[in-house]
Amino acid sequence: MPFRFELLHEDKAGPRAGRIITDHGVVETPAFMPVGTQGAVKTLSSADLESMGATIVLANTYHLYLRPGEKLVAEAGGIRRFMSWNGPVLTDSGGYQVFSLADLRRLSGEGVEFQSHLDGSKHMLTPERVVEIQLSIGSDIMMVLDQCTSYPCGRSEAKTAVDRTTLWAERSIAGRGARIIKDDYERVLFGIVQGSVYPDLRERSARELVGLDFPGYAIGGLCVGEPKADTMSIVERTAACLPSDKPRYLMGVGFPEDIVEAVARGIDLFDCVVPTRNSRNGTVYTSRGKLVIKNAAYARDWGPIDPDCRCETCRRYSRSYVRHLFNVSEMSGPRLATYHSLYFYLHLLSEMRQVIREGSFREWRKEFYKKYRLS
Amino acid sequence: MPFRFELLHEDKAGPRAGRIITDHGVVETPAFMPVGTQGAVKTLSSADLESMGATIVLANTYHLYLRPGEKLVAEAGGIRRFMSWNGPVLTDSGGYQVFSLADLRRLSGEGVEFQSHLDGSKHMLTPERVVEIQLSIGSDIMMVLDQCTSYPCGRSEAKTAVDRTTLWAERSIAGRGARIIKDDYERVLFGIVQGSVYPDLRERSARELVGLDFPGYAIGGLCVGEPKADTMSIVERTAACLPSDKPRYLMGVGFPEDIVEAVARGIDLFDCVVPTRNSRNGTVYTSRGKLVIKNAAYARDWGPIDPDCRCETCRRYSRSYVRHLFNVSEMSGPRLATYHSLYFYLHLLSEMRQVIREGSFREWRKEFYKKYRLS
Repeated sequence: MPFRFELLHEDKAGPRAGRIITDHGVVETPAFMPVGTQGAVKTLSSADLESMGATIVLANTYHLYLRPGEKLVAEAGGIRRFMSWNGPVLTDSGGYQVFSLADLRRLSGEGVEFQSHLDGSKHMLTPERVVEIQLSIGSDIMMVLDQCTSYPCGRSEAKTAVDRTTLWAERSIAGRGARIIKDDYERVLFGIVQGSVYPDLRERSARELVGLDFPGYAIGGLCVGEPKADTMSIVERTAACLPSDKPRYLMGVGFPEDIVEAVARGIDLFDCVVPTRNSRNGTVYTSRGKLVIKNAAYARDWGPIDPDCRCETCRRYSRSYVRHLFNVSEMSGPRLATYHSLYFYLHLLSEMRQVIREGSFREWRKEFYKKYRLS
Repeated sequence: MPFRFELLHEDKAGPRAGRIITDHGVVETPAFMPVGTQGAVKTLSSADLESMGATIVLANTYHLYLRPGEKLVAEAGGIRRFMSWNGPVLTDSGGYQVFSLADLRRLSGEGVEFQSHLDGSKHMLTPERVVEIQLSIGSDIMMVLDQCTSYPCGRSEAKTAVDRTTLWAERSIAGRGARIIKDDYERVLFGIVQGSVYPDLRERSARELVGLDFPGYAIGGLCVGEPKADTMSIVERTAACLPSDKPRYLMGVGFPEDIVEAVARGIDLFDCVVPTRNSRNGTVYTSRGKLVIKNAAYARDWGPIDPDCRCETCRRYSRSYVRHLFNVSEMSGPRLATYHSLYFYLHLLSEMRQVIREGSFREWRKEFYKKYRLS
């Protein structure tokens, strides 16, 4: 069954509900992808992800390429077999990590040379190589190598990044196209729109990539420090340049309210380390906003983290107990907190899918903000 | 329903099967108690303990007394409510931790004064106070404050420890006896036999405690460095001095083979940090013996940790994957390893209960050692 995107409901105001169909399962959209950086969502097992209702997981190409190496993952039967995850997997291109983690990087038209943040060993990533690595890892959705800009970013630098991103996108699909069947299942490549906060550059980047006919499009280089208003205006304008019959993925975003706002503007797919990373540090997300569970205020709070949540953490453990676990440095503290926050994110997306289909997203959004205190 | 011990099968050679009945559940014996030091078995949740078939959990009085404090645990509704564990809980007396963890300790006939290993604050534990703390924590089985000796230990030092342990045992039950009903359930006190490696001192200690008619007896101060042969000879001789209609608990023991040997000598109850602590460090226990899962040898081993194990880790994840998790410092590595090792221990005890009841323990033990490589 080839990869496809079905649009079930499109609101004129922006939000849309659909489904991404892959050889390894269906992802109802809008959807949030837990981040399984090194082939594992930090603190959790694949069984945990299943039990909380995750339908797709993101894994990081850069990390898996360095450890355990894409060849080992391929020998294991691919990332899904390796981590025992039964649904589809999306891998990023590694570009973002090269720009933010690697020690020394040298960018050229050819690709990007860098030193591992682990042992200083030298590596070269090119658009073609990044596809090969992802084919070895065995993800269902692969991302092209792009040039991600930071913020602030001058116009000419942003323009160079857009030009290079388009050229690299072309090279990514030059040999085999954007849909590759290997080991009896289809892997597809998504293009990534760049252009920093410049609407015309974003529009040009989108237009050029759409010309290459990718099965899906991502918006990269946002939530890197720019004002929230800029983020959302760029999301809105970029989404308008993308075809409505292809999934739209906003990379690395964000806080719950960012996701609500991006869904309102027609985004279908999200990933972010916020619910996992912040939970490990003791900040969890709830229907009332964020909550610093480590605070002494919760030492004698016998209620659940979120009174409206039905997750395994909230059904069973008190704020007092989770706070105690953090206080005495028990690993189960970060795990129970992560479980809750990811469940909250997944549930939030599930609620949005429902209200979009029912045509009541605007009313729902008002109610959401009545309860939710901004991060 | 009052606390009681039912002996179901007693082999003349030593091993016995029974059940400990508490107001919060039945513990089939011989049984292993996972160690929930700070109100949590490290890396695991109470739901994990349930799913692996644990029937009783041990919690450490010393740790809970310091954090979050026994008053908070009492306010939460007791340790079971606090950690959301539905079965019975046994608490140690804190004596062992005071001797091994606390910074400064001054022993007197009255009790033991010490400084917290966390903040240097001064505290005094007396036999009476230790019972009060455990009553606040709300465990089903409480342990008396004893004087634990290290190894080697001179005869006169061992004798002093026995004398003091008997005196403290008397003081522990002087007011209210060894069975106390509070908050609608019964809490019982176990005595602890000391005497280092001196058979006559062990016999005297056991005789004196049995004279006080405790609902159960522990053997303390073993596996502290003495030769294995001494451990087992002391276990055997001490068990012979204890009434057959009371449960016998060998404290802090041990490796799988130690438990098999102690069961063979009539022990009913065990606790030890070996399966949890060693698993966190990458050494797991299997039907073939221990296995250092972090070793590079397992990088491409696609089989489960233990081919004979049905635990959630072994049913789902490969040695290669668990090894990778350790290699990249993912918290889920220690968790999946701990889950397996504890499951292995619980399953080992369950197997022994069955063969004891069937009268085939000796044959089973031979088969066990044919497969099992000693730690």
